[in-house]
Amino acid sequence: MAKPKLRIGLIGTGFMGKAHVFGFTTAPRVFDLDHELELRTVADVTDDAAAGAARRMGFARSTADWRSLIADPDIDLVSITAPNALHKGMSLAAIAAGKHVYCEKPLAPQAADAREMADAAEARGVKTQVGFNYVCNPMLALARDMIASGELGEIRGFRGLHAEDYMADAGSPATFRHDPAGGGALADLGSHVLATAEYLCGPIRRVLGDCATLIAERPDGRGGRVPIATDDVGRAFLRFENGATGSIEGNWIAMGRKMQHDFEVYGSAGALAFSQERFNELHFYSGGDRRGRQGFRRIEAGPDHAPYGLFCVAPGHQLGFNDLKAIEVAGFVQAIAGRHPEPFGFRAGLRIQSLVEAIQQSSSRECWVDV
Amino acid sequence: MAKPKLRIGLIGTGFMGKAHVFGFTTAPRVFDLDHELELRTVADVTDDAAAGAARRMGFARSTADWRSLIADPDIDLVSITAPNALHKGMSLAAIAAGKHVYCEKPLAPQAADAREMADAAEARGVKTQVGFNYVCNPMLALARDMIASGELGEIRGFRGLHAEDYMADAGSPATFRHDPAGGGALADLGSHVLATAEYLCGPIRRVLGDCATLIAERPDGRGGRVPIATDDVGRAFLRFENGATGSIEGNWIAMGRKMQHDFEVYGSAGALAFSQERFNELHFYSGGDRRGRQGFRRIEAGPDHAPYGLFCVAPGHQLGFNDLKAIEVAGFVQAIAGRHPEPFGFRAGLRIQSLVEAIQQSSSRECWVDV
Amino acid sequence: MAKPKLRIGLIGTGFMGKAHVFGFTTAPRVFDLDHELELRTVADVTDDAAAGAARRMGFARSTADWRSLIADPDIDLVSITAPNALHKGMSLAAIAAGKHVYCEKPLAPQAADAREMADAAEARGVKTQVGFNYVCNPMLALARDMIASGELGEIRGFRGLHAEDYMADAGSPATFRHDPAGGGALADLGSHVLATAEYLCGPIRRVLGDCATLIAERPDGRGGRVPIATDDVGRAFLRFENGATGSIEGNWIAMGRKMQHDFEVYGSAGALAFSQERFNELHFYSGGDRRGRQGFRRIEAGPDHAPYGLFCVAPGHQLGFNDLKAIEVAGFVQAIAGRHPEPFGFRAGLRIQSLVEAIQQSSSRECWVDV
Amino acid sequence: MAKPKLRIGLIGTGFMGKAHVFGFTTAPRVFDLDHELELRTVADVTDDAAAGAARRMGFARSTADWRSLIADPDIDLVSITAPNALHKGMSLAAIAAGKHVYCEKPLAPQAADAREMADAAEARGVKTQVGFNYVCNPMLALARDMIASGELGEIRGFRGLHAEDYMADAGSPATFRHDPAGGGALADLGSHVLATAEYLCGPIRRVLGDCATLIAERPDGRGGRVPIATDDVGRAFLRFENGATGSIEGNWIAMGRKMQHDFEVYGSAGALAFSQERFNELHFYSGGDRRGRQGFRRIEAGPDHAPYGLFCVAPGHQLGFNDLKAIEVAGFVQAIAGRHPEPFGFRAGLRIQSLVEAIQQSSSRECWVDV
Repeated sequence: MAKPKLRIGLIGTGFMGKAHVFGFTTAPRVFDLDHELELRTVADVTDDAAAGAARRMGFARSTADWRSLIADPDIDLVSITAPNALHKGMSLAAIAAGKHVYCEKPLAPQAADAREMADAAEARGVKTQVGFNYVCNPMLALARDMIASGELGEIRGFRGLHAEDYMADAGSPATFRHDPAGGGALADLGSHVLATAEYLCGPIRRVLGDCATLIAERPDGRGGRVPIATDDVGRAFLRFENGATGSIEGNWIAMGRKMQHDFEVYGSAGALAFSQERFNELHFYSGGDRRGRQGFRRIEAGPDHAPYGLFCVAPGHQLGFNDLKAIEVAGFVQAIAGRHPEPFGFRAGLRIQSLVEAIQQSSSRECWVDV
Repeated sequence: MAKPKLRIGLIGTGFMGKAHVFGFTTAPRVFDLDHELELRTVADVTDDAAAGAARRMGFARSTADWRSLIADPDIDLVSITAPNALHKGMSLAAIAAGKHVYCEKPLAPQAADAREMADAAEARGVKTQVGFNYVCNPMLALARDMIASGELGEIRGFRGLHAEDYMADAGSPATFRHDPAGGGALADLGSHVLATAEYLCGPIRRVLGDCATLIAERPDGRGGRVPIATDDVGRAFLRFENGATGSIEGNWIAMGRKMQHDFEVYGSAGALAFSQERFNELHFYSGGDRRGRQGFRRIEAGPDHAPYGLFCVAPGHQLGFNDLKAIEVAGFVQAIAGRHPEPFGFRAGLRIQSLVEAIQQSSSRECWVDV
Repeated sequence: MAKPKLRIGLIGTGFMGKAHVFGFTTAPRVFDLDHELELRTVADVTDDAAAGAARRMGFARSTADWRSLIADPDIDLVSITAPNALHKGMSLAAIAAGKHVYCEKPLAPQAADAREMADAAEARGVKTQVGFNYVCNPMLALARDMIASGELGEIRGFRGLHAEDYMADAGSPATFRHDPAGGGALADLGSHVLATAEYLCGPIRRVLGDCATLIAERPDGRGGRVPIATDDVGRAFLRFENGATGSIEGNWIAMGRKMQHDFEVYGSAGALAFSQERFNELHFYSGGDRRGRQGFRRIEAGPDHAPYGLFCVAPGHQLGFNDLKAIEVAGFVQAIAGRHPEPFGFRAGLRIQSLVEAIQQSSSRECWVDV
Repeated sequence: MAKPKLRIGLIGTGFMGKAHVFGFTTAPRVFDLDHELELRTVADVTDDAAAGAARRMGFARSTADWRSLIADPDIDLVSITAPNALHKGMSLAAIAAGKHVYCEKPLAPQAADAREMADAAEARGVKTQVGFNYVCNPMLALARDMIASGELGEIRGFRGLHAEDYMADAGSPATFRHDPAGGGALADLGSHVLATAEYLCGPIRRVLGDCATLIAERPDGRGGRVPIATDDVGRAFLRFENGATGSIEGNWIAMGRKMQHDFEVYGSAGALAFSQERFNELHFYSGGDRRGRQGFRRIEAGPDHAPYGLFCVAPGHQLGFNDLKAIEVAGFVQAIAGRHPEPFGFRAGLRIQSLVEAIQQSSSRECWVDV
């Protein structure tokens, strides 16, 4: 019996657009999904660009009008990888048209917008997904399972960061990422580590923020210079509902760092250490190991860590970044099929947005803020 | 203008069969190939198995008769991922039918067979590829470029190994991999590091081998036990044409190792160190760095290391094992299109087989053997 | 011509007492000091303990009365490794007697006490040293030199921590380290990373603290339980005078960590990463390396990094913890000889104490505090 | 009651001379030795040099005549750190004079000489020690204990090397280390890893050698050039008495390596990995760890690993190279006191020399050689 089709419309064909398509084409081969996925329509800014993308990416149709893509009754799922400022309008239109929506992070510049989006999706009954791909890593699922099952004992501390250096050059021009509404390193990168923090340790209840701008002005790209108000580094101290304390940092001027999405979790009986720089490994310290034999052990990803085994039957072969995107797609598609709740829906995206704003407010007000 | 189609027939649907399909579906999205790839027919041992595989993997047709697949005029390229003993017969049949052939390693149990295969392919004018995927890593291309361009100076030493532990359990039964004809750790795993050695440092001229069986008998899978004659560890000392010396080891009882395909290369002006356990990194020591600041530097894979940038525009995001397979497919397909020589054709596969046999002979005769 | 003698009196014979003696006996062999060092008298709590220590450690005399040791005109330098609460009284007595004083950290429970001690020493004209040994590492001197010479460009960020797990067991009893006056993880361990932060990046001007108690009560060692008010984790955000921002953490419940005195420093042109877990290495990222060859390079300690070469003429052989103490002693003794200012005198110890208190106050008041 | 004195005469004041003195002065403070050690006399090539060394190092007397040092009835133990060619004559003289002898490696250029030395010492009844300091590391003792106690199961494989780059510069002149009698990388550095191999895995029974000269001539230091016959790289395959197989490499042209004394040991139940570059760590893979939680665990040196605790009561603080020398001295001195057999006497030094020669012969004859 043929599987029902899930017909996909993609808006945007850049870095994340390609990653989505990678996910859509890989997920059905790796996972036993309830739906067949069909790449129906791709939208880009011009007809030519869209047509070229359709050809390269394997979409049946193309358009320069994203509204017509959303309106198309032959589209079931809309993937949004357009610039951040457009996320809200596109998402609300897609939701109104009854489509499932897969939107890249951040959901919207402001938590209020994100709330409107989450509310709309739930009211309309469509499924949603926000692209927080790092939490799709089997090693993070392993970490969460170990924490949940008590292997670390009572959780006491979390230390996380997401640092890159792609804004470290003071001569690189200001972009939409420096927009005071929704911009900054905390929103851009710190959001990832906030997602990881709650994924692993549960809800954060209070934050104390410190957002700092180190590069005070940048070229405006038109020969002039523009003052920068958004943070280059955003940090926070954390209180979790479970009593643990912690800290996070988002940093886009960390010279030399390309993907330092790292964390350590300390419990009363064990600890975990992880670096996205070597994301097929999880380091585990067990307080239960015998004396003189204790130490952080380097667990390499393998078939024991679902869904790794669906990609490769042998351990140590490693997943890549695009594979994480395939896992993300699979999770979303099976949520659409009703197999499980949305792994990271708009409500979860709103949550991250709220945490970011709470930290920004805390930083401005110079005091702890409840979330 | 539509691209010409390259219609694919796949024989075998296991670990490597899946990896090939991954390659065939990913490569056209990542690379700008001259051909469109079409998954036409898949063959498995029964009609049902083949039909199921076709559905899961996206092939249009299926068959339990690999000969009919090869005979099908609508097939241009035959992928062979069946058990090793069948590689030769299937390859020769496909070559005779004028198909391009993509065969998993080892090409054949014996070098003589491999030679017959390489000769046949060249005589018939079809293109071939053997699946030595580790050399498809952009970091190995980087290493080779650095060596070729003289960044390391005169090459003096190579130390390589490929160690895993999947045969470390003495209670795991004998398989076809223990077949005296073509079996053993050297042929299975050492072959990979021999490929890497010549990929980086050029032709090996002499070998001194040491093949050892540590687990002298194994369960036969039918309640009895069977003596084992093939090597669990195969080692060799090497002399390269360029004057360098070196050593390799293939080992399938290296407890705890899942993918220790590691090497170090020493030159007069610099050195490289690599581990497949962290295969998105290459460690480079430059003798030219100023005093007091010298050290192995950890280069992370990024868009500067082609073709990484086709998978991801940002550095540090990392490729996975299946991505290496996509690079392998792309290289083969573009060779079929005449864009460049075969990256690792049957002639190259024969070369590895010859090296393996020379080492085995050297080990038996206990003396150096010219290659 | 014989060197003048510097006659040493040691109070306390535990962990740090042994380390001081190691320093006193090793320093003169490794360094060309202006003084000959003589182990004159050791004081412990009983006559027997002191006599045994004298015999084992090589002191000529022993006493159970530390006041007589200080009063002895044949003593030039008093080493204080007694419990923290006694540091002030002993130091002031020694200063009053005109002795040079080498006191283990923390100088005193409160900054006010530390100030009194620093003032007294300066008024009396004696030299002082506080035992912040980690900054004696040649790799930290290298880091500081690289920062000072501009190799990293403008310094933008510092991230440091000192985490151990020796208080992670909730069943381990309260000690003097849990005393509300002067106790806690921030004072005990965070003080080290504050010393490193200012050693590398210069003065800190503002702090935002977060001190948390995770283990709310502990055994009192007499069968009962006692509530704990001191922090198990003390964190702070930092503003440096040079414009850089940063963060530190002191943590004594970081399960699995034994000596995680780690830092990263980010500049506009390069970065450094260091871990005390591998303290004979400094990792350096140079933005000036050519494209495609950039990465953190692992500089191993060697004769290029003074004073390593005095310990060993070959690189890569490594210093140990006790060697750091010998470097500390040598620096102090040469300061006494007038060769250079005190490397880490009581004024510097007071500075650390002030930073700790500022962070503690900030944490209580929940706002930024100027230092 | 006073301890009996062991009066020491040292010949040679270079790198190793200093290291011996470090050992003699540190060992009695760290260990509870049966003897008091007294630095009596030091010999160097001139009176002035010897007098200066005595002053710096703390010897009571000095001499330019090593024969008089040996003849001195007030000397009990003679430490020999003079050039290799002198080891035999000095040792035999000291043995004849009834002194205990502590001689740096290699014992002698040829095994026959080493045998004469070992025989003489045993005939005379004096105790001897050869300076193979790396095996004094508590982490190697841990490794040996784990192997001996069966934690790794049946031992199947050893892979070891000792690589440095101090001869990598083709422009550095020939030295006594290039002397065909006793010279070469295998004898100089490979000897260390042979010592480690047998320390851990027991006797080696057969070897297959490969010694290669890569830098065929060097400056002679007098303006001319001299051909080089000794090996820059010496390798061997090994068969151990316990059935394990293995390989070693000694290499002094391994660009970038300063102290790559590394090994891996594979057993049927576990594995160990070690690098001298981080010699306060031992990496242990236990096949008994539960599924999904397996991995090499990084054991940090601490008080659980005797004699670390005598140097420092807290784990993770780390020993340095000179501390290994102190452990070596302590072991020798207690052997003199009759507490245990000589840890690495002349008989053991002869053993290493025999292994080196067997490998050299095997390399020349191009066949396996029994040891």
